[in-house]
Amino acid sequence: MAIRASIVGATGLVGECLIRALMGHPQVKIGLLVSDHAAGKNIADLLPPLRGDIDQLTVSATPEEIAKQSDVVFAAKKGSETFAVVPGLLKGGAKVIDIGGEFRFRDAAVYETWYKEPHGCKDLLCETVYGLPELNREQIKGARLVGNPGCYVTSALLALSPLIAENLIELDSIIVDSYSGLSGAGRQYNQKLGNLFTDIDGNMKAYNVGLHRHTPEIEQTLSIVAGKAVTITFVPHVVPIDRGILTTAFARPKAGVNTEKALAAMRNFYTKERAPFVRVLNTPEDVAITNVVRNNYCDVSVSVIERSNTVVVASTLDNLVKGAAGQALQNMNIMFGLDETMGLKGRSL
Amino acid sequence: MAIRASIVGATGLVGECLIRALMGHPQVKIGLLVSDHAAGKNIADLLPPLRGDIDQLTVSATPEEIAKQSDVVFAAKKGSETFAVVPGLLKGGAKVIDIGGEFRFRDAAVYETWYKEPHGCKDLLCETVYGLPELNREQIKGARLVGNPGCYVTSALLALSPLIAENLIELDSIIVDSYSGLSGAGRQYNQKLGNLFTDIDGNMKAYNVGLHRHTPEIEQTLSIVAGKAVTITFVPHVVPIDRGILTTAFARPKAGVNTEKALAAMRNFYTKERAPFVRVLNTPEDVAITNVVRNNYCDVSVSVIERSNTVVVASTLDNLVKGAAGQALQNMNIMFGLDETMGLKGRSL
Amino acid sequence: MAIRASIVGATGLVGECLIRALMGHPQVKIGLLVSDHAAGKNIADLLPPLRGDIDQLTVSATPEEIAKQSDVVFAAKKGSETFAVVPGLLKGGAKVIDIGGEFRFRDAAVYETWYKEPHGCKDLLCETVYGLPELNREQIKGARLVGNPGCYVTSALLALSPLIAENLIELDSIIVDSYSGLSGAGRQYNQKLGNLFTDIDGNMKAYNVGLHRHTPEIEQTLSIVAGKAVTITFVPHVVPIDRGILTTAFARPKAGVNTEKALAAMRNFYTKERAPFVRVLNTPEDVAITNVVRNNYCDVSVSVIERSNTVVVASTLDNLVKGAAGQALQNMNIMFGLDETMGLKGRSL
Amino acid sequence: MAIRASIVGATGLVGECLIRALMGHPQVKIGLLVSDHAAGKNIADLLPPLRGDIDQLTVSATPEEIAKQSDVVFAAKKGSETFAVVPGLLKGGAKVIDIGGEFRFRDAAVYETWYKEPHGCKDLLCETVYGLPELNREQIKGARLVGNPGCYVTSALLALSPLIAENLIELDSIIVDSYSGLSGAGRQYNQKLGNLFTDIDGNMKAYNVGLHRHTPEIEQTLSIVAGKAVTITFVPHVVPIDRGILTTAFARPKAGVNTEKALAAMRNFYTKERAPFVRVLNTPEDVAITNVVRNNYCDVSVSVIERSNTVVVASTLDNLVKGAAGQALQNMNIMFGLDETMGLKGRSL
Repeated sequence: MAIRASIVGATGLVGECLIRALMGHPQVKIGLLVSDHAAGKNIADLLPPLRGDIDQLTVSATPEEIAKQSDVVFAAKKGSETFAVVPGLLKGGAKVIDIGGEFRFRDAAVYETWYKEPHGCKDLLCETVYGLPELNREQIKGARLVGNPGCYVTSALLALSPLIAENLIELDSIIVDSYSGLSGAGRQYNQKLGNLFTDIDGNMKAYNVGLHRHTPEIEQTLSIVAGKAVTITFVPHVVPIDRGILTTAFARPKAGVNTEKALAAMRNFYTKERAPFVRVLNTPEDVAITNVVRNNYCDVSVSVIERSNTVVVASTLDNLVKGAAGQALQNMNIMFGLDETMGLKGRSL
Repeated sequence: MAIRASIVGATGLVGECLIRALMGHPQVKIGLLVSDHAAGKNIADLLPPLRGDIDQLTVSATPEEIAKQSDVVFAAKKGSETFAVVPGLLKGGAKVIDIGGEFRFRDAAVYETWYKEPHGCKDLLCETVYGLPELNREQIKGARLVGNPGCYVTSALLALSPLIAENLIELDSIIVDSYSGLSGAGRQYNQKLGNLFTDIDGNMKAYNVGLHRHTPEIEQTLSIVAGKAVTITFVPHVVPIDRGILTTAFARPKAGVNTEKALAAMRNFYTKERAPFVRVLNTPEDVAITNVVRNNYCDVSVSVIERSNTVVVASTLDNLVKGAAGQALQNMNIMFGLDETMGLKGRSL
Repeated sequence: MAIRASIVGATGLVGECLIRALMGHPQVKIGLLVSDHAAGKNIADLLPPLRGDIDQLTVSATPEEIAKQSDVVFAAKKGSETFAVVPGLLKGGAKVIDIGGEFRFRDAAVYETWYKEPHGCKDLLCETVYGLPELNREQIKGARLVGNPGCYVTSALLALSPLIAENLIELDSIIVDSYSGLSGAGRQYNQKLGNLFTDIDGNMKAYNVGLHRHTPEIEQTLSIVAGKAVTITFVPHVVPIDRGILTTAFARPKAGVNTEKALAAMRNFYTKERAPFVRVLNTPEDVAITNVVRNNYCDVSVSVIERSNTVVVASTLDNLVKGAAGQALQNMNIMFGLDETMGLKGRSL
Repeated sequence: MAIRASIVGATGLVGECLIRALMGHPQVKIGLLVSDHAAGKNIADLLPPLRGDIDQLTVSATPEEIAKQSDVVFAAKKGSETFAVVPGLLKGGAKVIDIGGEFRFRDAAVYETWYKEPHGCKDLLCETVYGLPELNREQIKGARLVGNPGCYVTSALLALSPLIAENLIELDSIIVDSYSGLSGAGRQYNQKLGNLFTDIDGNMKAYNVGLHRHTPEIEQTLSIVAGKAVTITFVPHVVPIDRGILTTAFARPKAGVNTEKALAAMRNFYTKERAPFVRVLNTPEDVAITNVVRNNYCDVSVSVIERSNTVVVASTLDNLVKGAAGQALQNMNIMFGLDETMGLKGRSL
């Protein structure tokens, strides 16, 4: 019997990508498409690329009503809007995959410090599972509430986890330099960032240097992998592309680590079974955004520059797919005992 | 039993799009991926976005060998290379869908005039079917050799056919002004066109004004629809986008034709049954390239400007999908008696 | 003695381009940079590319105060804001070049119909000169109030005027199909147009089909050139570029008109003396936006397609330069008896 | 009397930018425009944006002939082509500014190792001056042969020199992560890099990781500033923009160094007198490519992230201006005793 999957916040860029993903999933039936501000409109009129593929009205509904018609709900809202619906969804028996940042931190205080607002569901954090399949697959299987990782975070964690797990780099030397397309900023005008076409065409710049919310999220998981506290430097930038993140990370190698060893560690860590969506490439030069745009892969590679004693790690993913909707669907597959790649391999989203 | 589908010329942009389309088609098994210059290499190494999704060597093979392992062959080569394989493929029992321009013209002389080379398979033209499903569905059903329409041509024909069929415009007044992304130029450097990034970023210009090969192809079908010879003006341009064509066509309306009538004619012509991939929108302002990128839809609309007595028609499609690989798959579905939308609806390619 | 030139509306895209132009003009001293919403801030902080080149505070000032410190004022505001300052500027003795649309029409009713607001300075229209130097140089010399032409309009008029003046095309057959970069939309978010990077990257679409305000402005001048009323079809589009307009215009040729004759007419019309900033190129294929970006040239060419009996005219200019600030400076040069090309030839803006 | 300035290699992207710069320089008269492959053609036909601004034939000439008609020659060729002309130019009495990499290294062996070809003018290296005005102004004054710095190199040196000079960072911790537009790759097709529009639109990737020729050039000057050998990590990337480089550099701060101190060091180092083209901005977030496109500025800023103990330095410049032609003109001004900013301030190139 098909899984009934609903979306809260169906009309954003992530929502659109999720709908496309769910439509092509052989075991899913789309449940409710919830959008308070657009309730009653046909989703195909709100998301014109989908005209002809879907014919369904968006609705406004209580968490209880949503839960009644859903086996799983993807929450694609932010902050208080998410806190307002998740408890009711769980109480109503639906599993929840939250694509916002609300359920990514074990410690509510970290959320409150970096997101600058109170955490509205502290009592749920003890059961929340961090939804990075490559590291947490077993816990995800049994979860009813998954916090889907941030887009930059996924690119950083998949780049660095093998090297930390295999003890190949110095933990106090990690720099994550990331470059994101503008779809990461959503459909809203953002004067501070400057996301008009005339702002960003031909342009690049850093933003939130040392202050971006994804910093503690990267640190949380790298610390778990390392078995001790890791603090990193994270600098995000915007670049004139629509979709995709390229991360170039740097670290000091442990003694004796060369490219061959680092690459072997990556390949051992990301076996096909353990990481069906991570592709380890021969060199960082092979890691290019357009190879992952609209698919659920994350491409990674590593090179050790011996003359300057530095490890260079490259990773790339589509912020809307492996960085959001695709990874969420991958988590759903795991939570429902399906083949993890179902509806995701061989597809563009 | 699955249809065995092979591709001759598998490594180009159209080949890549075709492979992606075929991989997700529920009734297809990919046969041979033929590439003379890259034979023996894994297609996933040649087309890095596909790594992990496919694991198959490209081959060099005779038409007979290809035919033996194929129910249908997509020919994605040009000119003499196409003429060299098609007869053998047909003789071997395979159906053929040619994506180049070789089998689009009823009259070999038109091909030879505009393509400036001899037609190598004149004897096959009598049985060739022009593969535009919206007009030729019945003939495509029985065809063993289909000439897949040109990308600009599809955008022009789907824009203008309803208005001509319903006798709403003056036939001697048709202007087709088209704008294409650079994927239309393929993976090769083209000095005359100027397809380096630095040539085209921030740039636009016309090329082949009045001389483009798609001109007689547009005219051939419009003449059939009109029941008399139609000559048009066609001006193609390049614009700094990757995929997609936007066509704005102009014509003088017959007396009494207004927006309402013209739009109604379009809607009547493109019923869901007759045209599952043509979406008639309310105004030309709604016709935007990104709504059709990577899908098989062609969006069209029309407006009559009464003060200047001119019909403005807009259409858009993805040159690699509805303008090439997607339409080819649509033709395959029809030729094999499948649901015409199989493997194409609800998908990105 | 230097001409004191002030700008009302100094912080917009046109204002920025004007400041750059004025800074490099050998006979100009920048007067007041007026900006009500940003008064008191250093212009270099508001327009960061200019840091180091200019160090001047923006001010809020009455028209009288502005006039006192200015020989000429460039008005780069819209509608009522322009009507509120122009009379006072003139009364105070300053010449005015209005870059908005307020003083382009001889007939206030046309303005009111197309701009949907009352014309606030009807009494000034009788002395207003339309600032297209290639047609109106003599009148501009003596003007104290010049209406600087619209960007699309300049591209259309420079493309079509020679052909109409020489009686080479049918007046009832003119179609102007134009494509503009996003700087035409200014620095503001425009939800209807969709000028976020994610809206327009990889995208193109028409807007205001048959309704754009530049339509009557094109018609007004073409009618003067023709000596009788001309009605045209004008369709503007947005394309993913920052600066520049490409116009492809179509018309039916008079009997006997071929490419050679049409091109000769253009070359005769645009002699170096009469049109130092119009470059007539050999074919429409040579007309490319990047050749005019940031300079004051308009490139034009023409081709007659005899098989379809259609004239194709191409023109391109930078909407902020020849389409706004550069043309305004050219008008200033003429109004003050300077070499028309001063501060404009050999420069990027 | 005007300085006669000639260009060897006049038709490339740097040559075009140089011509534009020279045309607007009040003390320069353009001498010979040398291009062996295009000799006899009008430069305005080869570089269409310059049509109307210049009317001069390119020539083929011996170094002696060039020298006879030149006070200074800009050499914009590579490797052996440069070595073949420079001695003759000097012998003939012309000063030479080499924009290629041939005269940037004190040690010919470094050139030969990284450029993989013999150095053809070793005897000239003892008198060569490295043309970074902010560090070497006094030596440039007396030079007759200047090696103009690399584009990435200039961005890295201007970012890091103040921090090293003031002893604020650990020398063994320097990482230079740079992102360049495609004009850095010139007008030629480069299959390895992938500089077709379809290769790079929507894409980013690293290249020559740890191997780029600009690495030893950065190290050479930083070592001089530091007074001891410095080895760095340098990773260049391509991004889908036309012009501009953004460099984000990282280093470990010395004890007690915070943002305030680092920024003060930068401001002290780059006084207006010492660095008329370096603009120190308040935060790395203010450093954006479009602020320097087509001008000769390099914008820099620095932030110390105390929680992760890392210095983040940002710099940006236009690779064709401050990274090539503009800096070359700045060097010419210094060599001829002119105001260093002549023809460069307040201009777009």
